[in-house]
Amino acid sequence: MTIKSESVSLEDARRIIAAGEAEAASIGQPSNIAVVDAGGNLVAHVRMDGAWLGSVDISINKAFTSRAFDITTADLAEAAAPGAQFFGISGSNGGRVMIFAGGVPLRVDGRVVGAVGVSGGSGAQDQQVADAAAAGF
Amino acid sequence: MTIKSESVSLEDARRIIAAGEAEAASIGQPSNIAVVDAGGNLVAHVRMDGAWLGSVDISINKAFTSRAFDITTADLAEAAAPGAQFFGISGSNGGRVMIFAGGVPLRVDGRVVGAVGVSGGSGAQDQQVADAAAAGF
Amino acid sequence: MTIKSESVSLEDARRIIAAGEAEAASIGQPSNIAVVDAGGNLVAHVRMDGAWLGSVDISINKAFTSRAFDITTADLAEAAAPGAQFFGISGSNGGRVMIFAGGVPLRVDGRVVGAVGVSGGSGAQDQQVADAAAAGF
Amino acid sequence: MTIKSESVSLEDARRIIAAGEAEAASIGQPSNIAVVDAGGNLVAHVRMDGAWLGSVDISINKAFTSRAFDITTADLAEAAAPGAQFFGISGSNGGRVMIFAGGVPLRVDGRVVGAVGVSGGSGAQDQQVADAAAAGF
Repeated sequence: MTIKSESVSLEDARRIIAAGEAEAASIGQPSNIAVVDAGGNLVAHVRMDGAWLGSVDISINKAFTSRAFDITTADLAEAAAPGAQFFGISGSNGGRVMIFAGGVPLRVDGRVVGAVGVSGGSGAQDQQVADAAAAGF
Repeated sequence: MTIKSESVSLEDARRIIAAGEAEAASIGQPSNIAVVDAGGNLVAHVRMDGAWLGSVDISINKAFTSRAFDITTADLAEAAAPGAQFFGISGSNGGRVMIFAGGVPLRVDGRVVGAVGVSGGSGAQDQQVADAAAAGF
Repeated sequence: MTIKSESVSLEDARRIIAAGEAEAASIGQPSNIAVVDAGGNLVAHVRMDGAWLGSVDISINKAFTSRAFDITTADLAEAAAPGAQFFGISGSNGGRVMIFAGGVPLRVDGRVVGAVGVSGGSGAQDQQVADAAAAGF
Repeated sequence: MTIKSESVSLEDARRIIAAGEAEAASIGQPSNIAVVDAGGNLVAHVRMDGAWLGSVDISINKAFTSRAFDITTADLAEAAAPGAQFFGISGSNGGRVMIFAGGVPLRVDGRVVGAVGVSGGSGAQDQQVADAAAAGF
């Protein structure tokens, strides 16, 4: 018996990204925003003009991380701190696990169907933009 | 004396991707479409619903390759064939050099200001979608 | 509408490196010095005779990091410390993010047009050489 | 009993690069030129204005390859062709082995003390620039 699943579509991803962009613009912080599907694979990415080049990779991998462990990267950060139970997890998955704020799972009736990752500002800004993006879903 | 240059914006990238998507839809071949800037860094990416997962990386790296060498990946493919002058180039740049059709430089008055990469169908389809995308610029 | 930008030239890079070398020589600390352009791509690198082999990569990646996030790597170091908001960022971008002193953005009228990275001595020495190099721009 | 060796200095590398640049300029082909020492480690690199971004990595690795196997990369290309004895060697050394023209060992009395790598034009152009660079040594 196969497993039925559901996942964000490109249309969903665009709505999510648009909501994130609006928030990023409102706080004046150009950002990278990425959405992955239920399989953790990239659906869409944008780098707003002027956003950091190094944040392309980070936004995509924050989204990956949030789906990979069904958790916000802010929450994972606590568990991955020195002395905490998952310290060292950032070295797994070929360096794709991001352990700082800005990745948020996307849910339908509690089930994770994808994730969004934001990188471009402070941790608090990235979280704010990611929350707004997720709310757009 | 610094060098003046110009590069595609996110708005440009969206117009380019939209043109590519329209072409991909018209031939019934869901595709990944990516745009990089003048520095070879990702500006935007979309994976159309149903497009291959393995083509995320390929589309981004076809775009990178076209900017990295200011050439279509179809033309590079010929130069990178066994016996040709660049055979082996696909092993350079950490495996990011793609030597099959679907990457096209984006030009303004002859100067390369970015590139588009498409992956999802046959080489001929990818080229057709990439050409349509570039024409949208 | 494309984005106009500017970037360091090879001539700029040589002047920057020469200034860094003079400082490194004056403090008796052979160093690796690298300059990247506005896209984060290497423009020039030198390893002074006797400088550490392992610092080739570090100098290039300090320069990359400073451009990737428009920040000195010394400042990034604070934000990337355990408990700080970007702890874990050094695992991003394929291991290219350096979070210790010696990378400095290069600016024209406040806009980042490249970066210089220095590695070879203590953090304080690398910073001193990088500052001197940047001042040479 | 330890092994005595000799290697190119930074001063040597600069003279070699200058000779390569002069040749590249004379044929109107902006190039990346890199010099490695007897240990295969980078001594110096320049990217002439307008040279391909993707050639940064290639020039450095052509130089590495020429020293790693004490051979021109043009000669290695023949041995690494499909059906030849070293076919597949380009997959070794983490993808650093370049099997097309442009890498040339640097010798003193027949002993290899480093190598130069050039990337930016056709295979014939890269070879010509690399030969001129090596002659400058």
